[in-house]
Amino acid sequence: MTNLMQATADAIAKAQEARLAIRNGLAIPTAGMAKGMTQANMISLPRDWAFDFLLYAQRNPKSCPILDVCGSGSYRTVLAKDADLRTDIPLYHVWENGKLVDEITDATEIWAQHPDLVTFLIGCSFTFETPMLEAGIEIRHITDNCNVPMYKTNRLCRPAERLEGELVVSMRPIPADRVADAVMISGRFPSVHGAPVHIGSPDALGIKDIMSPDFGSPVRIEEDEIPVFWACGVTPQAAVMRSGVPFALSHAPGHMFITDVPDAAYHV
Amino acid sequence: MTNLMQATADAIAKAQEARLAIRNGLAIPTAGMAKGMTQANMISLPRDWAFDFLLYAQRNPKSCPILDVCGSGSYRTVLAKDADLRTDIPLYHVWENGKLVDEITDATEIWAQHPDLVTFLIGCSFTFETPMLEAGIEIRHITDNCNVPMYKTNRLCRPAERLEGELVVSMRPIPADRVADAVMISGRFPSVHGAPVHIGSPDALGIKDIMSPDFGSPVRIEEDEIPVFWACGVTPQAAVMRSGVPFALSHAPGHMFITDVPDAAYHV
Repeated sequence: MTNLMQATADAIAKAQEARLAIRNGLAIPTAGMAKGMTQANMISLPRDWAFDFLLYAQRNPKSCPILDVCGSGSYRTVLAKDADLRTDIPLYHVWENGKLVDEITDATEIWAQHPDLVTFLIGCSFTFETPMLEAGIEIRHITDNCNVPMYKTNRLCRPAERLEGELVVSMRPIPADRVADAVMISGRFPSVHGAPVHIGSPDALGIKDIMSPDFGSPVRIEEDEIPVFWACGVTPQAAVMRSGVPFALSHAPGHMFITDVPDAAYHV
Repeated sequence: MTNLMQATADAIAKAQEARLAIRNGLAIPTAGMAKGMTQANMISLPRDWAFDFLLYAQRNPKSCPILDVCGSGSYRTVLAKDADLRTDIPLYHVWENGKLVDEITDATEIWAQHPDLVTFLIGCSFTFETPMLEAGIEIRHITDNCNVPMYKTNRLCRPAERLEGELVVSMRPIPADRVADAVMISGRFPSVHGAPVHIGSPDALGIKDIMSPDFGSPVRIEEDEIPVFWACGVTPQAAVMRSGVPFALSHAPGHMFITDVPDAAYHV
């Protein structure tokens, strides 16, 4: 029941190489790295908050699709056997009482200080960027070599126990005549956010200035392009902020965990 | 983020009618009832076991796809606003220390004795039977008006905290020339078990006698038919048994909770 689709040895080698570079200090956004391999968001919470978060994820599956949960204190995952979650993410955010207190490239000390962390790896929309590229749809933040723009919205997630927060979305400008294709292609990947949650009309999501994202970088939107919004795995961080969670560790937006699982594993 | 697809008023009325008959004592398997409306498996556990089970479900999504979690002590669900989970399931099983101790049609007293129950509603393969019927694929247990046959297998689920157990499957005999269609149609419903886990060769699943299911009724298999196996929402009950959970309440296999959500809501 739990056998994950095996990637080719070559593809796994590429993922391992990327993780090794990251472990050795490479601290850049991961979009476009190890193409074809699934990337994941991370959020780690004290054991006491694990049920709250797992329920939050279950109630908001479009923004928080869980790919793996690493039990109390474990920094190992079935998604990449030789990976170490303490070092293999380019940039981490440290949260205290809902506030961002530190940005680090190595979380080994954090794990030592908080031995009961439960870690959630969550699907990332980077996963369907490869099939979109293959279909001839330009991904602007890859072309321009910057981070994807992400926005807090006015849509609240369904709360769970002590957790509440806004839906966070990522945005990709898509030519009007390819929007339907982008919907169909991403829709085939429901475990990694799936189809968009909103197409056009940023106002209706409460986004005042599309060129000032809450996370990541702004990107050009050409005249014939529509901003298309997908649910984003930064949504858990918004919940940590709004709910004042005493302690949390997360990836920095756009700086993902690269797994050994091929994108195809999440294709329905 | 949480708006469920709305069924038509007529369809909701049919579901309500079915639940009312069940509330008034109708205690039969629900396959074929309120056609087109999603049916769900139920398992209720003490709050202390809620994280264990939610993690078990997350780790075994094919057999335990969660449609709703009703917080401590609640017998209400977003899947059917006027429903009462204490009375609206045809037949309940009561479990103590992993053993089946009672079979009841009204669980009101149970909820009074165990006020901290957390209740999980889990997808059911009955959901994709309507589209299979519409595609001209006979569903034998509906034709023969009996319960679907279900089997414990030799495949272990991925354990979680204190929970472990076998994968349970349901079986439908499908004509050899329609098996591919049955795969494609059910595969479009990943939240309600999706595509089969096994096709033909019951031996390889550890099923010794296909005519002696562990739950439900045996069904005829004609000469040109292949037994096709889908992950089953009775899997949580197998985990309750094997793990010796101190207390649990569940539906009786095949006797499901009928929701107000149309099957189409789970179609990708």
